[in-house]
Amino acid sequence: MNLEKIHLLETELENLEKAVKMRRKLIEKKTKKVLKNVPFKNFPYEDIYKRCCENVIGYIQIPLGLAGPLLINEKEYYLPMSTTEGTLVASVSRGSKAISLSGGCKTNIINDGMTRAPVLTCKDLQEAILIKDYCIKNFDKIKDIFESTSLYAKLLKIKSTIIGKHIYLRFKSFTGDAMGMNMVGKATQKVLQSLLEIFPQTKLISLSGNMCTDKKATAINFIEGRGKSVVSECIIKEEIVKSVLRTTPEKLIYLNYVKNFIGSSASISIGGNNAHAANIVSAIFLACGQDIAQCVESSHCMTLFEWHENKKDLYMSVTMPCLEVGTIGGGTHLPAQSAMLDLLNIKGSCEIPGENAKQLAIVICSAVLAGELSLMAALSTNELIDSHMKLNRKNKE
Amino acid sequence: MNLEKIHLLETELENLEKAVKMRRKLIEKKTKKVLKNVPFKNFPYEDIYKRCCENVIGYIQIPLGLAGPLLINEKEYYLPMSTTEGTLVASVSRGSKAISLSGGCKTNIINDGMTRAPVLTCKDLQEAILIKDYCIKNFDKIKDIFESTSLYAKLLKIKSTIIGKHIYLRFKSFTGDAMGMNMVGKATQKVLQSLLEIFPQTKLISLSGNMCTDKKATAINFIEGRGKSVVSECIIKEEIVKSVLRTTPEKLIYLNYVKNFIGSSASISIGGNNAHAANIVSAIFLACGQDIAQCVESSHCMTLFEWHENKKDLYMSVTMPCLEVGTIGGGTHLPAQSAMLDLLNIKGSCEIPGENAKQLAIVICSAVLAGELSLMAALSTNELIDSHMKLNRKNKE
Amino acid sequence: MNLEKIHLLETELENLEKAVKMRRKLIEKKTKKVLKNVPFKNFPYEDIYKRCCENVIGYIQIPLGLAGPLLINEKEYYLPMSTTEGTLVASVSRGSKAISLSGGCKTNIINDGMTRAPVLTCKDLQEAILIKDYCIKNFDKIKDIFESTSLYAKLLKIKSTIIGKHIYLRFKSFTGDAMGMNMVGKATQKVLQSLLEIFPQTKLISLSGNMCTDKKATAINFIEGRGKSVVSECIIKEEIVKSVLRTTPEKLIYLNYVKNFIGSSASISIGGNNAHAANIVSAIFLACGQDIAQCVESSHCMTLFEWHENKKDLYMSVTMPCLEVGTIGGGTHLPAQSAMLDLLNIKGSCEIPGENAKQLAIVICSAVLAGELSLMAALSTNELIDSHMKLNRKNKE
Amino acid sequence: MNLEKIHLLETELENLEKAVKMRRKLIEKKTKKVLKNVPFKNFPYEDIYKRCCENVIGYIQIPLGLAGPLLINEKEYYLPMSTTEGTLVASVSRGSKAISLSGGCKTNIINDGMTRAPVLTCKDLQEAILIKDYCIKNFDKIKDIFESTSLYAKLLKIKSTIIGKHIYLRFKSFTGDAMGMNMVGKATQKVLQSLLEIFPQTKLISLSGNMCTDKKATAINFIEGRGKSVVSECIIKEEIVKSVLRTTPEKLIYLNYVKNFIGSSASISIGGNNAHAANIVSAIFLACGQDIAQCVESSHCMTLFEWHENKKDLYMSVTMPCLEVGTIGGGTHLPAQSAMLDLLNIKGSCEIPGENAKQLAIVICSAVLAGELSLMAALSTNELIDSHMKLNRKNKE
Repeated sequence: MNLEKIHLLETELENLEKAVKMRRKLIEKKTKKVLKNVPFKNFPYEDIYKRCCENVIGYIQIPLGLAGPLLINEKEYYLPMSTTEGTLVASVSRGSKAISLSGGCKTNIINDGMTRAPVLTCKDLQEAILIKDYCIKNFDKIKDIFESTSLYAKLLKIKSTIIGKHIYLRFKSFTGDAMGMNMVGKATQKVLQSLLEIFPQTKLISLSGNMCTDKKATAINFIEGRGKSVVSECIIKEEIVKSVLRTTPEKLIYLNYVKNFIGSSASISIGGNNAHAANIVSAIFLACGQDIAQCVESSHCMTLFEWHENKKDLYMSVTMPCLEVGTIGGGTHLPAQSAMLDLLNIKGSCEIPGENAKQLAIVICSAVLAGELSLMAALSTNELIDSHMKLNRKNKE
Repeated sequence: MNLEKIHLLETELENLEKAVKMRRKLIEKKTKKVLKNVPFKNFPYEDIYKRCCENVIGYIQIPLGLAGPLLINEKEYYLPMSTTEGTLVASVSRGSKAISLSGGCKTNIINDGMTRAPVLTCKDLQEAILIKDYCIKNFDKIKDIFESTSLYAKLLKIKSTIIGKHIYLRFKSFTGDAMGMNMVGKATQKVLQSLLEIFPQTKLISLSGNMCTDKKATAINFIEGRGKSVVSECIIKEEIVKSVLRTTPEKLIYLNYVKNFIGSSASISIGGNNAHAANIVSAIFLACGQDIAQCVESSHCMTLFEWHENKKDLYMSVTMPCLEVGTIGGGTHLPAQSAMLDLLNIKGSCEIPGENAKQLAIVICSAVLAGELSLMAALSTNELIDSHMKLNRKNKE
Repeated sequence: MNLEKIHLLETELENLEKAVKMRRKLIEKKTKKVLKNVPFKNFPYEDIYKRCCENVIGYIQIPLGLAGPLLINEKEYYLPMSTTEGTLVASVSRGSKAISLSGGCKTNIINDGMTRAPVLTCKDLQEAILIKDYCIKNFDKIKDIFESTSLYAKLLKIKSTIIGKHIYLRFKSFTGDAMGMNMVGKATQKVLQSLLEIFPQTKLISLSGNMCTDKKATAINFIEGRGKSVVSECIIKEEIVKSVLRTTPEKLIYLNYVKNFIGSSASISIGGNNAHAANIVSAIFLACGQDIAQCVESSHCMTLFEWHENKKDLYMSVTMPCLEVGTIGGGTHLPAQSAMLDLLNIKGSCEIPGENAKQLAIVICSAVLAGELSLMAALSTNELIDSHMKLNRKNKE
Repeated sequence: MNLEKIHLLETELENLEKAVKMRRKLIEKKTKKVLKNVPFKNFPYEDIYKRCCENVIGYIQIPLGLAGPLLINEKEYYLPMSTTEGTLVASVSRGSKAISLSGGCKTNIINDGMTRAPVLTCKDLQEAILIKDYCIKNFDKIKDIFESTSLYAKLLKIKSTIIGKHIYLRFKSFTGDAMGMNMVGKATQKVLQSLLEIFPQTKLISLSGNMCTDKKATAINFIEGRGKSVVSECIIKEEIVKSVLRTTPEKLIYLNYVKNFIGSSASISIGGNNAHAANIVSAIFLACGQDIAQCVESSHCMTLFEWHENKKDLYMSVTMPCLEVGTIGGGTHLPAQSAMLDLLNIKGSCEIPGENAKQLAIVICSAVLAGELSLMAALSTNELIDSHMKLNRKNKE
């Protein structure tokens, strides 16, 4: 068989697992490598064919652990995390314990909407201004066109940015329980068709002009929000900081200021005022079938440690302005991933559209709260170095 | 059994798979959920125990496909990608075809070094300046201490940043075939012990002061590099742009300028001058056992499309300043992941230390080149919309 | 006389110029320095007393030149520039000539509003959300309170940003012909008084929480606009590019891409996609009595050079999203500054409030267009080096 | 006379003031405007002709005040400030008083070097790497060529950034008491001539590729420094915070965290972790003849307020990484400006080259310290609002 055609095996063999087997053989022959350690059995290929991956030769396995339980808005959750970073699950569990013992965390969604921003090049500035004005004056009409493409989409806002004769239209939409990129893309295309008929001299340059912004670190996402914007907060009692986390509120507050604010500001960061939010986001994204490339901006996070108003306990919060998550689509239907969404009671579409996806965002944000607390505690003590230093000083005396 | 203790099951049962089974039962009982769809058999738990994950209940599966082949520095590679984003593998394959037909891409590492930046708080500015000067004058001595902790570490640079009375010391080190965070962390600790003895009034606030910077989007990584800094470039013949990619060099060049430069600049971005580098980086990271949370900065990428000097063909390049990769450690030893490194001929440590990790960076960067080319081509044509518009105009006539 | 009291001389002497003279003497005595070269006569001290400067000892002089004329929206303007940077006025004149010979530039205001963003710290996240919702639901009521403090203020928008339990409220207002910081500050205070009565547990931390953002480089200004957002564009005929600017459209377009886009992106910039906008902005700011410290963000500018659609001439534009200007207040009433506003026909308040300030923004933006064109042309030719290289090669032959 | 030629009046009339007079008349005639309020007498036109400004019609006047005295490194300074922003001088004076009463501030230069970064486009990536390597291996040779163009220049570093086939070479040089842009530009040109002879296939695109970076807000300046990098710090006794500034250390520390760190981070800023550094920088720049357009990055500043180690007094610092200043060149020779440098004992070149310019940087940075302290104190009390609220509550009771 011609290797040029190995992507057509599924069509030719009419059996998906057989196609995978045949492809492995062909690759083995061609590369003189052995693929026997790549697992491929017991996998629902029908669920990914023409949907999730092409030229499949099997699957990878990543360990799945449960952190927690964590008390979020007065309910207990086990947190599914898929990772190869040792101690990560244990660390989130420690943070969860400290939070839960203090009464749990409170959390809420403060913004919700997926975005897509096509770019159009106009005849001149004047035409760009006409398009901007048109979008303001005809918002309801555009909204109708936009929403005609889907049962769930609700157009919330069009933010126009004019640069010379180019105009970037950032469409923001509610997308139910889907992460929503496809939904918004399709709806945006429909709107563009209508716009281009009204402004025939204008050219569509791209369905995405990078002001959306998908899978890159940009200020516009942090400032305007993308996906879910979530905050989670808690108050940790001083004695629990000491007993569970082996540090003090004072140490944590100072560390947060020196590391997550001075350090992150001096390195010039977008969304980087945190210790390791990306670790927790990526582990839950994997476990719950999310689009892992969206970790780039979904892990933007601002972590605060302050004195509680009693000047004794610790106030802590994490703010995540662009968590892009869904409970349908992507890899959410794969066996383990689907089971993990079920474990969180948010599998598939919710009767009240969007509530499952929001709940996933809330769980991730709260898990980040726990992860930040635990790592910051560990860093604040510098145990390894401190003990060495003490020993050394003693020896000198 | 007490749920509080479920993380201790491995110790108590002395059989790793049994511990996983017991944990699943306990969780099922507690949560009243069924975990039978979470696979757990046929997995080398001994390889991840006390190393990659805690509180394990099984593993997740992610489809593994092969893109390519892609001609990189005159050698052909199949590109392992683990993803649930449909068409991604196919798209990279299309880009690979266009590149390979044009003679392949050339690529090179232009910088190599992992970093860790502890923060120290001094008595005052004067002491911070003394530490900075000390590190300059005693670089060789510090280098000896640093390198005494590992066979592979080679200290390359200490970049000192003074902010008020705080000093951030960014240690940069060669780390062989390991991604190197642990290696550099351990070596940095050793240096800090020595420094703190010389400057007893100075306090170590944190082993990481966020100027490293790990798993966040920061300018310092983009400007100074972290991990491997790689460039990959190619020249695509005009006829191949037309036949394989169904677009023109002119369209691609203009699109790149409007989207990846004007659009990304207007959204204020760090490392976001690209179309979808994060998709390719995360898929190969997963397939090759890399630390997926490092996608945040490993996907920083600047994509260029220009006229080749003959004003006819297309010149293209991608520049990735902070690709953090290794061929040992992390998840590189898991079955499929290890097989994929083997497929690329870069499994484990190289005889010439560091060459395998460099090669992995080169392959990823070149795969990004292919992925950028293919998606940009698709965006430049707006096929769906264009065909609709043509039809519509015809109907009107 | 006690030097501690030298700031009270105006009160004590009841003659402003005498106070200045006395202060000079006291300072000369104290410092043993001679101030005779500091001019102080012929200055309207009554216009600056208790208004522009304290502890006055005279004034500085900065040369004032006129660049242009420049054809803006079909009217000719001489551009007042106060600077000590040699060739700057000449360079803007050259750019103006090339633009005017090509038919002039077109320009327009695309956004107009001054901002102030106080920060409040709430009891908890929930209260912050209540305040955000209150501002949305009671916008009209807040608008009434806001506008009750001034004849000109028109509240346009309140953008709420919640970070943990902190809320930043960015008030955006039309401010007539004033730059408007004071107007918006006063109005914001009034609104805050009302808000704090409704939310008595909330604390006002600061009238400015740095999301305004005044006199700093921030993405929020670039993305959301502050003051006037202006675009100016022109088409320069190929023969004029060659004859007046001694370069070619092709060279300019490539230079702009390599310098203002690749270079600025690689240095990670906010608003820095230009060659030297700050030079022109600061020179006109000085000449027209603007707040010179606001140059920081008023000089944010994105400069585009592209092929005109005929693929022969040059299309050029500059986009300036946060030009903060006014024709009343600040130093606009000083003798030369006032005369320069008069020269531009925009002195003081316009009958249609705000039109003078808008016109000033339009003139500055168009002057930047001319300045960018001329410097880019000079850079594109590298005359000094090129001629040396030619000579050198000839000698070798 | 033809208006086209008004820039030639100086040549034709052979008397500079007469030329200015004639130009005014011509402009008045053409524009039908009166320029009599624009001062033009008593000005040393010979000092600015062919050096600072073209097409001169007179000069502008900006009030000049003295703030302070401020105790810097145990010496007392009056701070020259030229501004039209009322209360600015008074505010810096108040801050100076609080600092001086507490024993003054300590300050030091931590980095010194002006930069220029040309961009070259190579045949391909390989050639770019060759140039990078060449610059490393031949640093001494390049240094000789660089320094041959000036008595003062000392080449400190060449930072190479490769993006595709483009290479940006950031030359950093000591420049004595000059701000140094011209000096470095000239020296860089000389080096480029030599480089282009060795790499004849490489093209110089621009003497500045925007990685220098001049007059724009960029992370590279903040991270790598440009001009002088300076820190100034002080400890303010609690009782002085209360008596002079009418606030408390606690309030200041919390305000700084909420405004200058959370607020500035949430607005995504480069160098904006401060309250109003640009006000002080621009006022002293004007008073001392500096290049006012460089305020953009010279005002980058990170302001810290922390508890002093006794947990009672206030520790404060400002860090300014890119203060671009000189005591020769620019407008430093104008009458008032020169007198102000003399007042600071730093007029012209220092016997030890560079010491005057460094001292100017130290004075500016310390003045910023005073300005930040005073404005932050005012903001922390919210006096206007607080008093209103108290009154209101009392009335209600």
